[in-house]
Amino acid sequence: MSHAPSPALSRRHHIVRDELSARGLDALLVTALPNILYLTNFTGSSATVVLAADRLYFITDSRYVETVSAMNATPHHVPDFELIVVDGSYDATLAGFLATRPWTRIGFEAEHMTVARLGWLTATLAAGDTPAAELAATDGLVERARVRKDDYEIATMREAARRLSEVAADVLTMVRRGQAERDLAMAIDWRIRQAGFERSAFDTIAASGPNAALPHARPGERTITEGDLVVLDFGGVYDSYCVDLTRTVSVGPASSRAREVHAAVREARDRAIACVAPGRSRFEIDAAARDTLAGHGLGEAFGHGTGHGLGIEVHEDPRITRRRPDVNTQDEAVAPGMIFTIEPGAYLPGWGGVRIEDDVLVTADGVEVLTDVTTELIEV
Amino acid sequence: MSHAPSPALSRRHHIVRDELSARGLDALLVTALPNILYLTNFTGSSATVVLAADRLYFITDSRYVETVSAMNATPHHVPDFELIVVDGSYDATLAGFLATRPWTRIGFEAEHMTVARLGWLTATLAAGDTPAAELAATDGLVERARVRKDDYEIATMREAARRLSEVAADVLTMVRRGQAERDLAMAIDWRIRQAGFERSAFDTIAASGPNAALPHARPGERTITEGDLVVLDFGGVYDSYCVDLTRTVSVGPASSRAREVHAAVREARDRAIACVAPGRSRFEIDAAARDTLAGHGLGEAFGHGTGHGLGIEVHEDPRITRRRPDVNTQDEAVAPGMIFTIEPGAYLPGWGGVRIEDDVLVTADGVEVLTDVTTELIEV
Repeated sequence: MSHAPSPALSRRHHIVRDELSARGLDALLVTALPNILYLTNFTGSSATVVLAADRLYFITDSRYVETVSAMNATPHHVPDFELIVVDGSYDATLAGFLATRPWTRIGFEAEHMTVARLGWLTATLAAGDTPAAELAATDGLVERARVRKDDYEIATMREAARRLSEVAADVLTMVRRGQAERDLAMAIDWRIRQAGFERSAFDTIAASGPNAALPHARPGERTITEGDLVVLDFGGVYDSYCVDLTRTVSVGPASSRAREVHAAVREARDRAIACVAPGRSRFEIDAAARDTLAGHGLGEAFGHGTGHGLGIEVHEDPRITRRRPDVNTQDEAVAPGMIFTIEPGAYLPGWGGVRIEDDVLVTADGVEVLTDVTTELIEV
Repeated sequence: MSHAPSPALSRRHHIVRDELSARGLDALLVTALPNILYLTNFTGSSATVVLAADRLYFITDSRYVETVSAMNATPHHVPDFELIVVDGSYDATLAGFLATRPWTRIGFEAEHMTVARLGWLTATLAAGDTPAAELAATDGLVERARVRKDDYEIATMREAARRLSEVAADVLTMVRRGQAERDLAMAIDWRIRQAGFERSAFDTIAASGPNAALPHARPGERTITEGDLVVLDFGGVYDSYCVDLTRTVSVGPASSRAREVHAAVREARDRAIACVAPGRSRFEIDAAARDTLAGHGLGEAFGHGTGHGLGIEVHEDPRITRRRPDVNTQDEAVAPGMIFTIEPGAYLPGWGGVRIEDDVLVTADGVEVLTDVTTELIEV
């Protein structure tokens, strides 16, 4: 279980209930596990939640009953909670439960409901004795609440970022000539868990030499060699929340080209962070990094977005990206409580690459950088 | 990338194409990543495949173009392959591509397509200049091909199971009094990667004393103590394929009750494995384990299924479970090439538990046990 206090859970439910009532919905069927965790602290792998106006119905199977019940007596209990234990299958249990409710319109998460599952539920409800409620598609009701972190989440992620920064300081000293990338990645993962993280937040990247030109390289058998730049990108999950950090080191004295590219990426990182404040556009923050790199002739070398939101998932809104009218449809302005990465990079095929990544919090009047480890080019 | 040879990929395509033509479908939109990996060896995190009668269209973004293109010159290349690079968003690219095809009925994977995504695709195709193809729900077309492993997969999983058995032999010696469960789990994960696995196949379970009564316990701060039974359940992903193994050890001399429960579970494991052969019912295999435990008064103590299929995913068909007419709708008989776990257990709340798990292959005339490490109760 995660550990958000009950009043925080209550506020989260309230935000979503306001959205439900604005849409004329009697309840919301929550099927995405990160959303379920947000509303209930549940960290298991199987559950369905039905959030109604005065109750949160929690459907899970016998494996989790003991854990869920134990939470009831704690300061982390779910307000207005009612447990329903699966009998047969999850969906048969859910359909049986919904048939007993007097509801007429029930929202579901269209981005987290498969066509097969909706088809089965609709047919099963229609075949029942009572008039079936309408199942109505909704879009991001819980995710939009999750974008601005509450005090509990901020405290958790601040601590997570502090621990990851300690890991990063050690990681900078762990790079060795002759070491295979994958052995370095394993050692980083070990250090992450020693620091109290539940697990790595994603497959750790240790990309050396020409591999550093691939933003999503997988660590392989290549051995780290004098003269390499090595991109190290790693993250951890701490009390269910993700943090993420990247540094690039030079193996031996850096070439003048490596120094130039690193300095340009570092300047892009600094300028993007300086741009973060409530009300600023996420496209503007991206442009601060992108224009800096372009000014150093590295515009083409930066192919990905400047950052992504962090939280229960390692990639969340807001996306700090180029303005693309055809694909960017979400809100534009960043707001207090948002936490996201700033991670510009420059990738030169055949030569190598540099990326620097930190995690930032939008505060009431500006920005707090949650991660804290040198951004200078370290030569190891 | 995974490494199935091209002729194997070709056979897999052929199986699915037969299903398409039997259903009057011009093509199948494949959105589930494990199915995409099965058809193309692709192990990245974003791609969409359209399998048509004479071509496999592969849509991915710029991050993966280099990796995918490099495969073309290898013995693992995808037959009749055509690469489409994402421009804008995946779905905009997909819709634009589909609009250029003369197809009238395109299947999609209803279990792996969200309601939101289907709604967007349907609306976008309908708004185009050309008559829109019908998008038709399909169910498990690729998954059913995956249930019976081909020679390449069997060789890969045999090697994976051999390596995991070596890990298991070491793990039995790694349990220490005073060690926290989570430190033991970390050490097991480390050993798994040292053995050449890409990663652990799931969160390793190290459940000691009363925690061993929880089949899905997460390793925590509890320290391993004289007199404990410790359930150790771990798996690895090797060249994209999952294997899974459980042993239970006694810390110090086992009590007579612990010996009895362990012996009953071991007998259940042996009897279930002895029952595996082509044509046998998966319910019958489950009953062999379940009835054995019931005969020792442990019927109530065994709450989960006897096993699950393994492959690209750690839980696949076939499910070796109780016969439940309301929920078990898939085929009943096991067949050569199927690989699944046999993992009976007995869980006594407050006291502890025992589980023993091996991976088996159904052969032409019986069964091959892929994992190989002692099933005796080890006292450490």
